[in-house]
Amino acid sequence: MEKDEILEMFNGDCSGRIFWVSTCGDLPHLAPVCFVKNMDGKVVVAYNFIVKTTRLVEETGKASIGFAERGKSGFYGYLVKGRAWMDYDGEYFREIRKFVEEKTGGKRSPRGALVIEPEEIYSLSPGNERKKLF
Amino acid sequence: MEKDEILEMFNGDCSGRIFWVSTCGDLPHLAPVCFVKNMDGKVVVAYNFIVKTTRLVEETGKASIGFAERGKSGFYGYLVKGRAWMDYDGEYFREIRKFVEEKTGGKRSPRGALVIEPEEIYSLSPGNERKKLF
Repeated sequence: MEKDEILEMFNGDCSGRIFWVSTCGDLPHLAPVCFVKNMDGKVVVAYNFIVKTTRLVEETGKASIGFAERGKSGFYGYLVKGRAWMDYDGEYFREIRKFVEEKTGGKRSPRGALVIEPEEIYSLSPGNERKKLF
Repeated sequence: MEKDEILEMFNGDCSGRIFWVSTCGDLPHLAPVCFVKNMDGKVVVAYNFIVKTTRLVEETGKASIGFAERGKSGFYGYLVKGRAWMDYDGEYFREIRKFVEEKTGGKRSPRGALVIEPEEIYSLSPGNERKKLF
């Protein structure tokens, strides 16, 4: 699968797929998220409740995001890792805020956007083959 | 919910719940797993295909594991963080190997056990309330 096709799967409006964001502190941290948009080659996550993730992104400048689900022939999934930062007033933030407000009828309005710039992409399908794709 | 009740949810035989293991390297790492057993107050994960997770556990001695799913009143989930190590010949390994071999009719036999000793437990339910439970 091409890189663009994989990144295209990093889109979600909380009606289906759950994504997981991993960040590093004293101990590894994990948070489930569901408002996710692939914008401009980046994976953008709405910051609604991910307080600790946000703090660790600001401290380390790094994050990973993945999903996995049952397909027709077993589990499959993908993981994107890279440089990450918070956007509180730029274009990523404005676009994800508009997206979440539309999808929730204004019930939720994100406080910021977590932006991940893909540096490494892995397959999360079980098996012994090479997992690092890009 | 009591600590024991939460840890009891860290049991899975790949028929349902997917769990996510987070470890830290140059970039945060994530892996989905499904053969999980709560043993002796520890969360034990079968090492079938999680090569990179295993290496990072050996390097850092730390891991986190979480799950989240849709409940009757929205998403809920839990995250356990703590000291972690690999067991290749001890009791944790023997028990998880037996469990996986039984559940898969011998089709899979784990190479080891990832053992996580809970130090911190978080709720992963969305909301602004305190997430750290223990």
